[in-house]
Amino acid sequence: MNTISFRIKNKDKSARTGIITTKNGIVKTPAFIPVATLGDIKTLPSWDMKNLGIQIFIANTYHLHIRPGEKLIKNLGGLHRFTGWNGPIATDSGGFQVYSLSTKRKIQEDGIIFSSHVDGAPLRFTPEKVIDIEIALGSDILMPLDECVGYPAGIGYAKEAMDRTNRWAKRAFEYFKTLAYPGLLFAIVQGSTYTDLRKEAANVLTELDFDGYALGGLVVGEDPSQTREVLSSTVPLLPQEKPRYTMGLGKVEDILWAVGKGVDLFDCVIPTRNARTAGVYTWKGKINLKNSKYKDDPNPVSEKCTCPTCRHYSRAYLRHLFNTDELLAKYLATLHNITFYMELMKETRKNIEEGTFFKWREEILSKFKGGFDD
Amino acid sequence: MNTISFRIKNKDKSARTGIITTKNGIVKTPAFIPVATLGDIKTLPSWDMKNLGIQIFIANTYHLHIRPGEKLIKNLGGLHRFTGWNGPIATDSGGFQVYSLSTKRKIQEDGIIFSSHVDGAPLRFTPEKVIDIEIALGSDILMPLDECVGYPAGIGYAKEAMDRTNRWAKRAFEYFKTLAYPGLLFAIVQGSTYTDLRKEAANVLTELDFDGYALGGLVVGEDPSQTREVLSSTVPLLPQEKPRYTMGLGKVEDILWAVGKGVDLFDCVIPTRNARTAGVYTWKGKINLKNSKYKDDPNPVSEKCTCPTCRHYSRAYLRHLFNTDELLAKYLATLHNITFYMELMKETRKNIEEGTFFKWREEILSKFKGGFDD
Repeated sequence: MNTISFRIKNKDKSARTGIITTKNGIVKTPAFIPVATLGDIKTLPSWDMKNLGIQIFIANTYHLHIRPGEKLIKNLGGLHRFTGWNGPIATDSGGFQVYSLSTKRKIQEDGIIFSSHVDGAPLRFTPEKVIDIEIALGSDILMPLDECVGYPAGIGYAKEAMDRTNRWAKRAFEYFKTLAYPGLLFAIVQGSTYTDLRKEAANVLTELDFDGYALGGLVVGEDPSQTREVLSSTVPLLPQEKPRYTMGLGKVEDILWAVGKGVDLFDCVIPTRNARTAGVYTWKGKINLKNSKYKDDPNPVSEKCTCPTCRHYSRAYLRHLFNTDELLAKYLATLHNITFYMELMKETRKNIEEGTFFKWREEILSKFKGGFDD
Repeated sequence: MNTISFRIKNKDKSARTGIITTKNGIVKTPAFIPVATLGDIKTLPSWDMKNLGIQIFIANTYHLHIRPGEKLIKNLGGLHRFTGWNGPIATDSGGFQVYSLSTKRKIQEDGIIFSSHVDGAPLRFTPEKVIDIEIALGSDILMPLDECVGYPAGIGYAKEAMDRTNRWAKRAFEYFKTLAYPGLLFAIVQGSTYTDLRKEAANVLTELDFDGYALGGLVVGEDPSQTREVLSSTVPLLPQEKPRYTMGLGKVEDILWAVGKGVDLFDCVIPTRNARTAGVYTWKGKINLKNSKYKDDPNPVSEKCTCPTCRHYSRAYLRHLFNTDELLAKYLATLHNITFYMELMKETRKNIEEGTFFKWREEILSKFKGGFDD
C-alpha cells in the first residue's frame, strides 16, 4: 500500500539532494514548501502553481478544521480537488498554534483544548484526531500533533513539552500504522534551545520508523545563533536515509546554511508575506518596491527572472500599484517571490549535484546580508 | 492622421451594433468598458485581459495625474506600455471627481482647482490641461473636462454647470484640433435630471464634430426612472453615426435597457466591486458566494462559464476563501464577473445582429430582478 520513499541522490559534503515519492507525485529536495494555511498560497490561483515550479505546499490542520472543516472538504473530494492542486500536499498538525495562539489553548496529557480563534468554540485536538483530520483532507505528508514551545522557555517546561510531544508522536505513529493510509508520517523534534533536550527527543523519536524527521519550535523568537546551534547539534542525530525538515525556517541565508547541514525541506511564510508588503527578491539582493528610487525604474524586478510579473511589468508600475494600495500588487509580487524561491532551490539542487554548492552559496550569501533596502 | 472611425453594422429596431476603430485596435459595440482608475482593473493582471474578452478599459486622468503622474508614464512609454495592455484605452477627465470629491474642489470659469485627496496639494484642471494629460498618457478615447453634478441639484446650478461644461467642451475641442493627435475626443452631455437642460446640452454639443457623445452625471443618486427618462429623451438627439456612451451605467438591466435605446458604450465599477464582496453573476441571476447555502456546493459559479475560476473551482471553495478573507477570492470572483459582462455584451451584439435582441433581453431580464441573494 505504501508507495512512498525517499531516495538520496547526491551529496556535496553534508548537503544532499533527494527525491520524496508520494501518492500525488514527487518532491525533489532540497525543497521549499510554500505555506497555504487555508488551502491557498495567499493570492495565488492553483493554475499558476506548476508554472512557478511549486512542488508541494503545506496547509494547516487547525485552520482547515475550523473553516471549512475536513468533513466538508472530504465530501467534495479532498483537499487536492477542493484547492485545484493535484501535486503533493503536506499538513501541519495544529502544534504550531500552541505557540501562535498561546492564549487560546490548554495542554492536557490527552491532547490540546483550543478555544477557536473564530468563535471561541472548544476544539479538542488529540494525536489520533489530528491524524484523522489529515487523512480526511487527503494529506501526502502528515505532521503529528506536537507542542511548539515559544522562546524563552525554562528548561523544566521545555522538557515537559518535549516529553509530551514524544508521547503524542508515539500515539500518532501507532494509530497511523493501523490505518494503512498511503501518506508519509513525519516526527517533530522539540526541545526549545536546549541541545540536550533536542538530542533526547531525536533519540526517542528515531526509535520509531517515521517517514521523515522535522525540527519544530525554531524561529519562535530565539537568536539566529541559537537556531543554528540547535540545527548543528540535532540534524546529525537524524537518520541519513530519511528526509529532514526544519519547520518555519525560510530566510534565504538560513535555508542555504541548513542545506549545508543536510536539511532537505523548508517551509515559511516569508516570501509570500514579504511580497504583500512590497519586499521582493533579486539575485543581487532584496529590495522594497515602495522605495522612491524605483518610481521611474523601467526594469523588471529581476533581470534574469522568467516569472509573469517580470515578463510584463516594470518596477515603476509595481511601485505605483503598491503606492496606491492596489491589491494586484500583492499578487504580482507573490508570483515573483515564489518564482525566486523555486529557482533558488533548483539552483541549490543543481549545485549540490555538480559538487559546487558551497562555492555557489558564498556568492549568493554575499548578496543577502541585512534586510530589504527600505 | 486620424484613422479613427465608427461604423454602424446592424440595427434591431433602435438597438445597433458597430465598430469603433482606434489607433490601438477596434472596439465592437455595444461594449462594456471595465474601470481601471489607476491603470489596473482591480486585481487583474494584463495577461488575463484579452483572454477574458476585454476590448478596452477606462483609466482616470485625475488619479493618474496625482499618482504616478502623466510625465512619468509618458517617459516610460505611455499608459499602454506601463500597464502591459496594448488594446484601446479610454480616459475619464476628472469631471467625475467634481462629484465624488465634492469637498475637495472649487469650480472656476477657467477650470477646476482640486485639493489633492492624497496630500492636499492644489491641482488646476483646465480643459486644455486635461487634453494634455490624456495625450501624455496615450489615450485612445479622450473625455473632455466636465462638471458632473450630483443629485438632487437645483435647476439654476444644473444649468450653470451644464453651460460651463459646454464652454469647456468647446475649448477642449478647439485645442484638440490644433494637436492632430490620433485619438477620439468625445463630448459629455450634462444637465442633471432636467430633460430640457439635457436637450439644450445635446443641441450645443452636436454643433461641433466630436467623435462620440457621452451622457455624464447619471447614476449619482437619482431614481432609476429618472435615469431612464433622461436617456429616453436625450439619446435620440445624438447623431446616429457617432458612438453613444452612458458613463457610469452598469447594472445588467440598465445596460440592456439602454442598448435598446441605441446606446453603444458603458462603463461601471459594479462587476469588479461586487466581485470583491462575493457578489457574482450567473445566467440564472446574481448570487452572493458568502451565502451559507453554497458552503458545500460542488458546482462552479456558473455552469456555462469558461472563465478560469469556473474551470478550476467550486462555489464551496470560493465561499471558503471569502469566508476566511483570503485575497485570492477577490481575484477569482473578478475573473468571473468580467467574463460574465464580456459574454453579456457578446450575446447582446449577436442577438442584435440576428434581430432577436428584444426577445432575448426579456429572458435575461427575468433573471435579474432585485439584488444578490444575500
